[in-house]
Amino acid sequence: MAEENTEPTTETVAAGQLRAFIERVERLEEEKSQLQEDIKEIYAEMKGTGFDTKAVRTIIRLRKKDQAERQEEEAILDLYKAALGME
Amino acid sequence: MAEENTEPTTETVAAGQLRAFIERVERLEEEKSQLQEDIKEIYAEMKGTGFDTKAVRTIIRLRKKDQAERQEEEAILDLYKAALGME
Amino acid sequence: MAEENTEPTTETVAAGQLRAFIERVERLEEEKSQLQEDIKEIYAEMKGTGFDTKAVRTIIRLRKKDQAERQEEEAILDLYKAALGME
Amino acid sequence: MAEENTEPTTETVAAGQLRAFIERVERLEEEKSQLQEDIKEIYAEMKGTGFDTKAVRTIIRLRKKDQAERQEEEAILDLYKAALGME
Repeated sequence: MAEENTEPTTETVAAGQLRAFIERVERLEEEKSQLQEDIKEIYAEMKGTGFDTKAVRTIIRLRKKDQAERQEEEAILDLYKAALGME
Repeated sequence: MAEENTEPTTETVAAGQLRAFIERVERLEEEKSQLQEDIKEIYAEMKGTGFDTKAVRTIIRLRKKDQAERQEEEAILDLYKAALGME
Repeated sequence: MAEENTEPTTETVAAGQLRAFIERVERLEEEKSQLQEDIKEIYAEMKGTGFDTKAVRTIIRLRKKDQAERQEEEAILDLYKAALGME
Repeated sequence: MAEENTEPTTETVAAGQLRAFIERVERLEEEKSQLQEDIKEIYAEMKGTGFDTKAVRTIIRLRKKDQAERQEEEAILDLYKAALGME
């Protein structure tokens, strides 16, 4: 695409810089999409093996918290469930 | 803004119809925003009363499920936590 | 559900308060869902009338900005599109 | 954590498999977060250079569409804007 003039001016330089920034972002976005595809495939494989992927997603979310934090959150939740009669 | 002609044509009628549709959506969106504000205020009030709003949000999410569904999900989650040594 | 004792204690009062907060949030969430359903129906109606709902959504987003803000944003976007040869 | 027995049984094998799946997902999620950080830094750099990052994000979104599709969308949008008197 020859949309840039042959004699670089302040404007054409900015165009080249803008294009470079955009292409860097697009490459990283592409890599992110590829990783997302890979993650999706692992979940499909888990499901095929018989795991409950919804529970696995919860486990992964819980593992980001440290044990004390997680246990405290579960204690409060259990307290509220008891108060509301949710067995 | 006098963007509509005095003599309605097929095009101006479409413009009026388009505008009417848009204004109906905007009114409903406005009501939704107001409700969202009200919900936010209730959570602020709960927090002020000493409740853990994060746990309350979890409770509200859990109450959307029936008891059997919820208990089954919790059983699977506990099984996985035990398998991974998460106490 | 008779999960609360007959003699109110600090804990049972908290349970009643917790339940009241939760039910207020649930009612408002229910109203929000109903509004969302209504909005969805208007879009279905628009589509049935021949309008391009994707463009209508863009229009509604643009109408939230004031004219000067919108025009300035469009000017910058046009400048970048020209720099990149996007016609 | 010694949550796995010394003699592998059907259950301990499942635990190992579950853990392996989870760790694969976590590694890929970690890589995704890193990429997201890198993208954020590029936008910060763009902003530092004087570019309008909101417009750049729009450009990146538009570049995912082919030219004909984009031009048709813009034509419909311009038609609606004209109908509504949005200059």
